[in-house]
Amino acid sequence: MHAALLQEIRKHVNLTPEEEELITTSFRYKKVRRNQVVVQPPDIVIYDHFVVSGCLVQYYIDDNGIQHTLLFAPEGWWTTDLPGFLTGQEARYHIEALEDSDLLIISKQVLDKLLVKIPLLNNFFRILYQNAIMAQEERLLNVLSTKVEERYLRFIKKYPQLQNRVPQYLIASYLGVTPEFFSKVKARMHK
Amino acid sequence: MHAALLQEIRKHVNLTPEEEELITTSFRYKKVRRNQVVVQPPDIVIYDHFVVSGCLVQYYIDDNGIQHTLLFAPEGWWTTDLPGFLTGQEARYHIEALEDSDLLIISKQVLDKLLVKIPLLNNFFRILYQNAIMAQEERLLNVLSTKVEERYLRFIKKYPQLQNRVPQYLIASYLGVTPEFFSKVKARMHK
Repeated sequence: MHAALLQEIRKHVNLTPEEEELITTSFRYKKVRRNQVVVQPPDIVIYDHFVVSGCLVQYYIDDNGIQHTLLFAPEGWWTTDLPGFLTGQEARYHIEALEDSDLLIISKQVLDKLLVKIPLLNNFFRILYQNAIMAQEERLLNVLSTKVEERYLRFIKKYPQLQNRVPQYLIASYLGVTPEFFSKVKARMHK
Repeated sequence: MHAALLQEIRKHVNLTPEEEELITTSFRYKKVRRNQVVVQPPDIVIYDHFVVSGCLVQYYIDDNGIQHTLLFAPEGWWTTDLPGFLTGQEARYHIEALEDSDLLIISKQVLDKLLVKIPLLNNFFRILYQNAIMAQEERLLNVLSTKVEERYLRFIKKYPQLQNRVPQYLIASYLGVTPEFFSKVKARMHK
């Protein structure tokens, strides 16, 4: 189960067997079922989640009750309510399982200790966060400036494995349009 | 000039005098004038920029020629075209000085060496990037779900020093509305 995580980390930093053992014992295994709630406001956010298999979704519900999908996290992705995880404040984001999923979870407290014991892990998370920033810039620009057809093509490119695994209304929410409008766009694209 | 940078870094990590000296010699001073172009597509992106004084703006021009303001970088902020800086690909974002500005700049090559020589700096950048991710999530949610009035109030809270320093059409672009609509909103709010 931890092999997938170590493989991810090894892409960016070289660790000793002792360090890898320490990581393995620090991340705990958690199995969640389809539709299971992982984080829900106003929970206190305890864990960051690495997805070994399955898929989580992170979304926000605004004051008008509209659901905005921020992120899909299939195999190899991380997800948490980052402000809550880092600062201890109440969650603002919902995180749920879209499929039965195998997760590796770590608390802030354990992660902080791990970062002290294995300073190289800072390097790994620096790179992970760099990639997240670039993906978010892209996402923001998509919302601000790109037509829905193009946004959908980029979604498929970013998440090639998810097109038929995720409910269509969630893809619509991720693209920032209504499910009805998204259906029309897809019909137009298939012509 | 480097005191402002060291002060930022000291907020998060403790360095030896030798390490601080190494940082000082690795970041080079650059003065730019108001309206000076710092990065322009299709430049190759060489530097990350720490703003000591003044203010830079980072924006994107979409296929229809519309300008989307991604970020203001006043004193204490960092800005670069991150994908270009990290991967060596051509810039997609414009970065310009809104005021005469004092910058400290560092190339990817020098930064990579510095991160090897001072591993604790990975810790600093990990925290810097964490904060950037949270700010971007906030920004994305603002665009997706918040009324312009509320977005403007959040802009003022995030950048209290910029309200009267930055051209109003750029603030409108940052908020994702036309300058005309932004004027109407402000007039309504002042009543």
